[in-house]
Amino acid sequence: MNEYNRRRSVPPDKNEGAEDTSLIEGRNEVIEAFRSGRTIERVYILDGSHDGRLDTIRREARKAGVRIDFVDRRRLDELSISGNHQGVLAKTAAYRYAEVSDILKKAEDRGEEPFIFVLDGIEDPHNLGAMIRTADLAGAHGVIIPKDRAVGLTATVAKASAGAINYVPVAKVTNLARAMEELKDKGLWFAGADMDGGLMYEANLKGPMGLVIGAEGRGLSRLVKEKCDYVVRIPTAGHLESLNASVACGVLAFEIVRQRAL
Amino acid sequence: MNEYNRRRSVPPDKNEGAEDTSLIEGRNEVIEAFRSGRTIERVYILDGSHDGRLDTIRREARKAGVRIDFVDRRRLDELSISGNHQGVLAKTAAYRYAEVSDILKKAEDRGEEPFIFVLDGIEDPHNLGAMIRTADLAGAHGVIIPKDRAVGLTATVAKASAGAINYVPVAKVTNLARAMEELKDKGLWFAGADMDGGLMYEANLKGPMGLVIGAEGRGLSRLVKEKCDYVVRIPTAGHLESLNASVACGVLAFEIVRQRAL
Repeated sequence: MNEYNRRRSVPPDKNEGAEDTSLIEGRNEVIEAFRSGRTIERVYILDGSHDGRLDTIRREARKAGVRIDFVDRRRLDELSISGNHQGVLAKTAAYRYAEVSDILKKAEDRGEEPFIFVLDGIEDPHNLGAMIRTADLAGAHGVIIPKDRAVGLTATVAKASAGAINYVPVAKVTNLARAMEELKDKGLWFAGADMDGGLMYEANLKGPMGLVIGAEGRGLSRLVKEKCDYVVRIPTAGHLESLNASVACGVLAFEIVRQRAL
Repeated sequence: MNEYNRRRSVPPDKNEGAEDTSLIEGRNEVIEAFRSGRTIERVYILDGSHDGRLDTIRREARKAGVRIDFVDRRRLDELSISGNHQGVLAKTAAYRYAEVSDILKKAEDRGEEPFIFVLDGIEDPHNLGAMIRTADLAGAHGVIIPKDRAVGLTATVAKASAGAINYVPVAKVTNLARAMEELKDKGLWFAGADMDGGLMYEANLKGPMGLVIGAEGRGLSRLVKEKCDYVVRIPTAGHLESLNASVACGVLAFEIVRQRAL
């Protein structure tokens, strides 16, 4: 449990759309949500199913005073958004977006130079979830995504993040290029991933750093690419043009980790 | 997406008969299949839809003498397995599995030391697809997967591989540990990914190499781990235990690429 998450445990805005859904799906995901201290409103469990992890969920729900509804499969399927509930769903306060300032504060609190992922129009929720998970494990302080033409913090993203969504602040901004400009004024450097860039080993990726990953298929948008201080590439061989966006993000994030540790 | 998932409580790849399916879904995927020379039996296009990529598909189909059926959305949705056909489907000869010897031969033909991914029980088709894509781009010569308790070469995997499935030989074996034993006799070394291993930078990952990645959640199975010559870990921080399997595979594959280039 961290302080960021405490701050986010606020009642959901009733006006938020379906994108900011308040459903957590799957056994490990529900356990992780309880353990990270999220405000859970109700738990739905498949009637008649029993195993160790469901017992854990029952125990956590009792401890937190959360009501459990035992329902049949049809009802669970109806409630499910991801289609992969594994017999358990939790209704919770919607995922809240952070502010860019929260991300910078997290770096400051840790006494570290800022390390931020800037994701330029990711549309696949599995990719966004995997990248938020990578942000946690690479020690990045947060993720910035654009408001338009990109997936937001949906239940599928939360599930694909394996619970990292509870730890990594995600800020949604109207204009990515402008947000980058403001962060440059605060001393950040931006490295954009693109096949026409220089080899990643040859760029200096130490210091306050934003890693910019483009959308699946389209890559970096022109305006965002223009704001990058350098463009870096992974040394690929083979027939295809580029890695999966979340894999490319992981390879570059850990190149930054490697250089920072040198 | 939601509606699609609500209709089925079972993920598409778990459905009987979905494995080894002969369907390619999506515009880029169908174009890629034509260009890589795969045998396509029939193309289905959403009636009345027009754009540059569909024109390319029509042209490729004419060139190859492949029949095109123009169908309505309901028919396309019925035929689709991934639920994401983007208005076009191609029926093709099923994805064929390679033999382990084909993978070794590919390395020999290129005059390179073998570099193979060994995937120990990957269940998520997006992950398997992303890893086959990574194999192509990291210059690996092939991928070995187990016959049981793992996803095979389905349409969703093919789509997630972004066409890499047409270039990267994938062998399916009954017993992974035995296959590793046979490859060790041929000079390969195996590096397994696990959080209790040594730091990846400190292992010598040059030479004939198998990179072994465990299943989502479960990690490496005991028998497979025992066959690994060393166990390596990515230097992670954060709250979660491990990266997404395809991201971990990418980070380790490019650490191998980095060391080989030194």
